[in-house]
Amino acid sequence: MHCKEHLDYLFNPRSIAVIGASTVFGKWGFNILSRLLTCKDGKQIYAINNKFDEVLGLKSYKSIVDVPGPVDLAMISVPLSYVCSTMQECVEKRVKTAIIISSGLAETGAEGEKIERELVNIARNGGIRFVGPNCLGHFNTASNVLTVPFLPSIKKGPVALISQSGNSSQSVFNHGLEMGLGFSKFVSSGNEADLHFEDYLEYLAQDKETKIIMGYVEGFREGRRFFNLAKEITKKKPIIIMKSGRSDAGIKAAHSHTAALAGSDAVLDAVFKQCGVIRVDELSELTDMAVALLGQPLPRGRRVGVLTMGGGMAVISVDALRKNGLELPKLSQRTMDILNSFLSPRWSYGNPVDPAGDFVSYPILWPMIEDENLDAVIIIGGVGMASSFAGWAGIPSEMKYNARELRRQMEEKELEDLNKTISMMKQYQKPVLFTTMVWGAKRPGKIFKTLKKRYLYPYAVPETSAKVLAKLVEYHEYCKSV
Amino acid sequence: MHCKEHLDYLFNPRSIAVIGASTVFGKWGFNILSRLLTCKDGKQIYAINNKFDEVLGLKSYKSIVDVPGPVDLAMISVPLSYVCSTMQECVEKRVKTAIIISSGLAETGAEGEKIERELVNIARNGGIRFVGPNCLGHFNTASNVLTVPFLPSIKKGPVALISQSGNSSQSVFNHGLEMGLGFSKFVSSGNEADLHFEDYLEYLAQDKETKIIMGYVEGFREGRRFFNLAKEITKKKPIIIMKSGRSDAGIKAAHSHTAALAGSDAVLDAVFKQCGVIRVDELSELTDMAVALLGQPLPRGRRVGVLTMGGGMAVISVDALRKNGLELPKLSQRTMDILNSFLSPRWSYGNPVDPAGDFVSYPILWPMIEDENLDAVIIIGGVGMASSFAGWAGIPSEMKYNARELRRQMEEKELEDLNKTISMMKQYQKPVLFTTMVWGAKRPGKIFKTLKKRYLYPYAVPETSAKVLAKLVEYHEYCKSV
Repeated sequence: MHCKEHLDYLFNPRSIAVIGASTVFGKWGFNILSRLLTCKDGKQIYAINNKFDEVLGLKSYKSIVDVPGPVDLAMISVPLSYVCSTMQECVEKRVKTAIIISSGLAETGAEGEKIERELVNIARNGGIRFVGPNCLGHFNTASNVLTVPFLPSIKKGPVALISQSGNSSQSVFNHGLEMGLGFSKFVSSGNEADLHFEDYLEYLAQDKETKIIMGYVEGFREGRRFFNLAKEITKKKPIIIMKSGRSDAGIKAAHSHTAALAGSDAVLDAVFKQCGVIRVDELSELTDMAVALLGQPLPRGRRVGVLTMGGGMAVISVDALRKNGLELPKLSQRTMDILNSFLSPRWSYGNPVDPAGDFVSYPILWPMIEDENLDAVIIIGGVGMASSFAGWAGIPSEMKYNARELRRQMEEKELEDLNKTISMMKQYQKPVLFTTMVWGAKRPGKIFKTLKKRYLYPYAVPETSAKVLAKLVEYHEYCKSV
Repeated sequence: MHCKEHLDYLFNPRSIAVIGASTVFGKWGFNILSRLLTCKDGKQIYAINNKFDEVLGLKSYKSIVDVPGPVDLAMISVPLSYVCSTMQECVEKRVKTAIIISSGLAETGAEGEKIERELVNIARNGGIRFVGPNCLGHFNTASNVLTVPFLPSIKKGPVALISQSGNSSQSVFNHGLEMGLGFSKFVSSGNEADLHFEDYLEYLAQDKETKIIMGYVEGFREGRRFFNLAKEITKKKPIIIMKSGRSDAGIKAAHSHTAALAGSDAVLDAVFKQCGVIRVDELSELTDMAVALLGQPLPRGRRVGVLTMGGGMAVISVDALRKNGLELPKLSQRTMDILNSFLSPRWSYGNPVDPAGDFVSYPILWPMIEDENLDAVIIIGGVGMASSFAGWAGIPSEMKYNARELRRQMEEKELEDLNKTISMMKQYQKPVLFTTMVWGAKRPGKIFKTLKKRYLYPYAVPETSAKVLAKLVEYHEYCKSV
């Protein structure tokens, strides 16, 4: 069976057995099984544990070989000394694919390495491919499989994650779901004794539900293969990677975590650049970047216009643009003329555009999107003003009705303006990075919902917008060069 | 009248007049007045505008001199050409203090500068001190005064903010309130034509409700005075400052924003260090830092223990500690013995402590807090596990009752353990920085509420925890040295 078929069984199993199923909360065998029961959805779920007759309302089989029907996927969470014999039984049962949650293998030293090699031999000879060991599980939103006990329901969407750390992935989902990101598939790859990061990458490259591939990486088992795969994939699907182990101490820690062979950080930087991989520095930047790739057109260059409500953010933005190698050009004469025609004489007369006391509004933004001197715009504040105005409650009761009507009209108008803006971004191929929110925009409201849905969720600080924008520019430069 | 008295009137006015009050949403005179009406609370609020008879249900006076009673605070939002005559009328009315929202003065060039000088002359000769121009307002939670239209109700607490940017402050409050921070006073200082950053700083140093002073700064009008004040204040109250304008372009932008004379960045770094000011790089770090100063004891040194659920975060943490000049020492033999006595043989046998498959728990944390080799602990994940477990819903209905009871017991036990941890942090003077949350901890729950209330809100990524911890260490070193 080809690797792809094994991964098909992994992500679309019709039957799943939990080996080491437990009745005790906190045991992985309990956590995984109960999590699986929340997304049963027509799938056969089997509990295997020779100490019990029943686990979580399911008959408990002594061994996987006793299960009556076929088993596509086996989740193995048993003590280390039973891992190999359990795998042997999976071979007997003709299980297609396994996930080994159990840890204590190659990451702990020579003895664990020996067991791990044996495990790989048994599986390979028996026609099984497996994920892990020392991993957290996986999901596929399309087939409603979710084996990670501490993840909530995940929103369906176009982003996949391969993570060499289970724990880190939780952070990614937290931040991602908050920003409106939906996910297609996830796998916590653990020690990668059998299936490697590169196998998942190749699979996701072909996966129709996946448009962007994110990875948390400590080290590559097949560096050359990764490079060749990435070089092809990034032409069609962006790959965003956070590679940890930048410091010497970090590299050492990476080895004791997943037995990863972390290479020199500077070499990796160069390799990523050559194959078009977008490298980020923090877990939160994986999702910051994914959101931008989904919601923004790729900028033609690095000339940025800043539109800000208030000069403080202008100063902060200028610092952030400089730090990230972006430019802050003069506005074209046309833009100057348009802005002069309706802005108060207090305005900043240049880039950054600060209406200085007047509100940031879409009619200020539009000529900037059209400006031939600008490749992108960062807009700070000014969004959802009507929704976030805290004074509505102070309006006397006899005027309340009119105030409510005014607010409704303003929100409606802004929605119209926002939609026009989104069209213009496409038309002119200019990213517009929304940044910071006035308070109320965090509360559900039409503007906020639209921003979230269109992958335009505002970044918290100008630094993040500048960082993300610089990486969009680099990715576009790479795409044009290949 | 001494400056302090003027500021007393600013923060505790019994009567406030809004000059330029308007009936049109979007005009500052409308926004400020309606916001003030939400926190009237026994104060006299007057509307001044000679074009109307009534604004927002209040009688509109032609001029402030027509107001029957005394006026402690005048909010001035009038066109530039009326600013000086308005101030003259405030003098006639014997207004104590004013806030000039109007912009277009010194920040725009020579002509504006001239008006600004005239304004200062009129005020000074007439016994008025004023905030601004070109500012956003202020608040004092103790007296329920809030003049910023786009701020929600602010939680009362021990943190004050002086900001040379109104817009930036909104970001600070957003992030701060999310992290459970409460605020005492705020002032958007604008151009500082009359009252300077240094005046507010001196005032807040004496303010009983303020334990921590945060500042957003583009440039100091009285650098020497700032230095002398800060040197005294930081012995008792921490001062946290974000100074923007790091790049040359940023310095230029700062001038056109608030006419600030931004000095060399490297010089400022040295100055801040000499007077014990904690400098941060991003707006979000102001509140990250304030939370830590409130919730954490100051660490005795830079030796950090890391406790992490999963090795990925261990690698990331090690990188972050190195980057921030922190150390990762060996655990003491005592700690090793204790951990060996109950952890599975898979555990990492060292620092970072990774129970590798088992849950992070308080009994692992406790010997680390007691460890003589460690000055602080960063704990990643593992908090609120019972609340965030997503498998509860998968438990068969006949077992639901027991599951709910189990969950309740677990949450109760964790709360007990958390409280014990907080006591130990004090006893051993060891910070414990909680980092990342499993999903459910974001939902209200006892553990989360306690963390928030005790200023232990988890930081999103290890990088933030390491950065904050390094600054706590530096502040403590400074305090010991003076």
